[in-house]
Amino acid sequence: MSIMHVSIPPIHREMIEQARDYINQLTKPPGSLGRLEEVAATLAGMTGELFPRVTPPGVLVFAADHGVTAEGVSAYPAEVTAQMVQNFANGGAAINVFSRQIGALLRIVDVGVAVPVMDERVIQKKVRPGTNNFTQAEAMTLQEAEQALHIGYEQAVFMVGQGVRAFIIGEMGIGNTTTASALLATLTSEPLEQMVGKGTGVDEEQLAHKRAVIRRALLLHQPDPSKPLEWLSKIGGLEIAAMAGAMLAAAERRIPILLDGLICTVAALVARQFAANVIDYMIAGHRSQEPGHRIALRLLGKEPLLDLGMRLGEGSGAAVAFPLLLSATAMVNEMATFSSADISDRETKGGKER
Amino acid sequence: MSIMHVSIPPIHREMIEQARDYINQLTKPPGSLGRLEEVAATLAGMTGELFPRVTPPGVLVFAADHGVTAEGVSAYPAEVTAQMVQNFANGGAAINVFSRQIGALLRIVDVGVAVPVMDERVIQKKVRPGTNNFTQAEAMTLQEAEQALHIGYEQAVFMVGQGVRAFIIGEMGIGNTTTASALLATLTSEPLEQMVGKGTGVDEEQLAHKRAVIRRALLLHQPDPSKPLEWLSKIGGLEIAAMAGAMLAAAERRIPILLDGLICTVAALVARQFAANVIDYMIAGHRSQEPGHRIALRLLGKEPLLDLGMRLGEGSGAAVAFPLLLSATAMVNEMATFSSADISDRETKGGKER
Repeated sequence: MSIMHVSIPPIHREMIEQARDYINQLTKPPGSLGRLEEVAATLAGMTGELFPRVTPPGVLVFAADHGVTAEGVSAYPAEVTAQMVQNFANGGAAINVFSRQIGALLRIVDVGVAVPVMDERVIQKKVRPGTNNFTQAEAMTLQEAEQALHIGYEQAVFMVGQGVRAFIIGEMGIGNTTTASALLATLTSEPLEQMVGKGTGVDEEQLAHKRAVIRRALLLHQPDPSKPLEWLSKIGGLEIAAMAGAMLAAAERRIPILLDGLICTVAALVARQFAANVIDYMIAGHRSQEPGHRIALRLLGKEPLLDLGMRLGEGSGAAVAFPLLLSATAMVNEMATFSSADISDRETKGGKER
Repeated sequence: MSIMHVSIPPIHREMIEQARDYINQLTKPPGSLGRLEEVAATLAGMTGELFPRVTPPGVLVFAADHGVTAEGVSAYPAEVTAQMVQNFANGGAAINVFSRQIGALLRIVDVGVAVPVMDERVIQKKVRPGTNNFTQAEAMTLQEAEQALHIGYEQAVFMVGQGVRAFIIGEMGIGNTTTASALLATLTSEPLEQMVGKGTGVDEEQLAHKRAVIRRALLLHQPDPSKPLEWLSKIGGLEIAAMAGAMLAAAERRIPILLDGLICTVAALVARQFAANVIDYMIAGHRSQEPGHRIALRLLGKEPLLDLGMRLGEGSGAAVAFPLLLSATAMVNEMATFSSADISDRETKGGKER
């Protein structure tokens, strides 16, 4: 199959209404569980099931390097990408810890780390050893962009086969806030100043430099998001392409996607350029401290569940938010209804209020 | 012992600093896990342990009725208190569902339900069958207020004996947003209009009535929070007193308390009137939609973890927030450090940056 011909089913709107009606019969004042009620109804619409299940979740982490790090845009040296992939393999990173907490299946996929990571716990799917420095050349070829998308797609399909019922799509790639910001900049007229943040922790001077680097790349390539493969090949990242591919596969199978921070949300916007309704299968997990994340979420039209000042990536914010999906589904699956529990309803005035 | 002589140890400030230093060595950019890092350091200060544990959590739900419901301040009839206690016993309420999700020990304690709830799964500690209507008389005697505090205290001590490492203190009591708002009103000069909300769902007209009822009670009793037992006896609730007592016992034993919504936060403010530093052992779980909750949190000086538009009570918001404490402690307990994982630190400019 080609990623270009992905076919995502419409969400089940009638099931959303049925879920809302049912949730109003649970033993609590209507609306009193706030966004959990909305999440439960949304999940019903995505899955087509009144009593949706989201366990086990699957965490897919794609790793790749970014040639643009040669411009000095990151607080960490590029070799950290490979070192962190090894850390993922060893189980010591934040995403490992949070994946264990939520009982997730976790897959670490190398789609473009600059140096080899020799560990059998890392899935070897390297398209190329990092992108080109996109201030000087296209980040990758069209074929490579499509290959990365396809790998992401295939990895998600594999995890669905393993029984995964919800997805968290994470990443590791030193320099990828620069790449994500460049992609985001082409989707909005917001000035770069409000979009490009400190990533893993550059200072003010480096931040101005990071913006200048992005400006240079945009001038060079004039990237056009309406031609998404070309757009990705010019200023994209291998892991971002793979993430978008995984999201397309998930949505095609009606599997909910819980979004992480800036990079993940930009990957969601990339996926949307391939199939607009992919975003109907997404819930925003948290609001990152990266300034561009607000803009990306606004473009996506999603309000995040958590706002805890996190900005780590890896899928960590989504994994931390995941128990809220569990709470929402447990609410629908396990709570008693007013009639089953024989509890007096509200004192209604002139007819049934719910 | 008397609740008046509770002695709460100071938090371990040095351990907070140690925890912060250690968290900065974990394999992530400093500060990138946002409030989880702060929570982990706070828990270290409370427990005096660099690697704190919060499992199993204990959920204590106190139930009681409120004589002021005779004034028509609630959207539900008073009999719902007893019916919901039965629902708790049967395992069908929101707090049951969320307690199971987080592996909590759960105790349902009747400290003043108006009618008997004959179920062995409900701890029978009824001080009296509901308070008096405090627009006409004192809610309870001084002795009854102290007895309710003491029951809460003893219940928490019992759960600590069962191995509980964190507390969620919930409630059920039709009319208790009115009682909590009355208590809160005596602690602040904020106008009642900004404090008294719709509770489980009264309309605008009933809301104005609810405020008028509170105003009448305050005029009648002139309650003074600096005499906390008297204050409670005049306009308090039996479950609110028990909740405050439980919090005092938890803090005395250095056990963290995760706060729920308006009623719980007012109980925290009540506990503070007995021992000021009890609040050092509290973390705000969520922001309730009840307008008074913002004011109560401000008085307490706490910023909540979640803001999901919930307003159910029972301890449900805190239980839904609890996985965030798990994430914070798992981070400290399980993540690798830069040195243990052999990962390059940031490119530092002129010396160690962390």
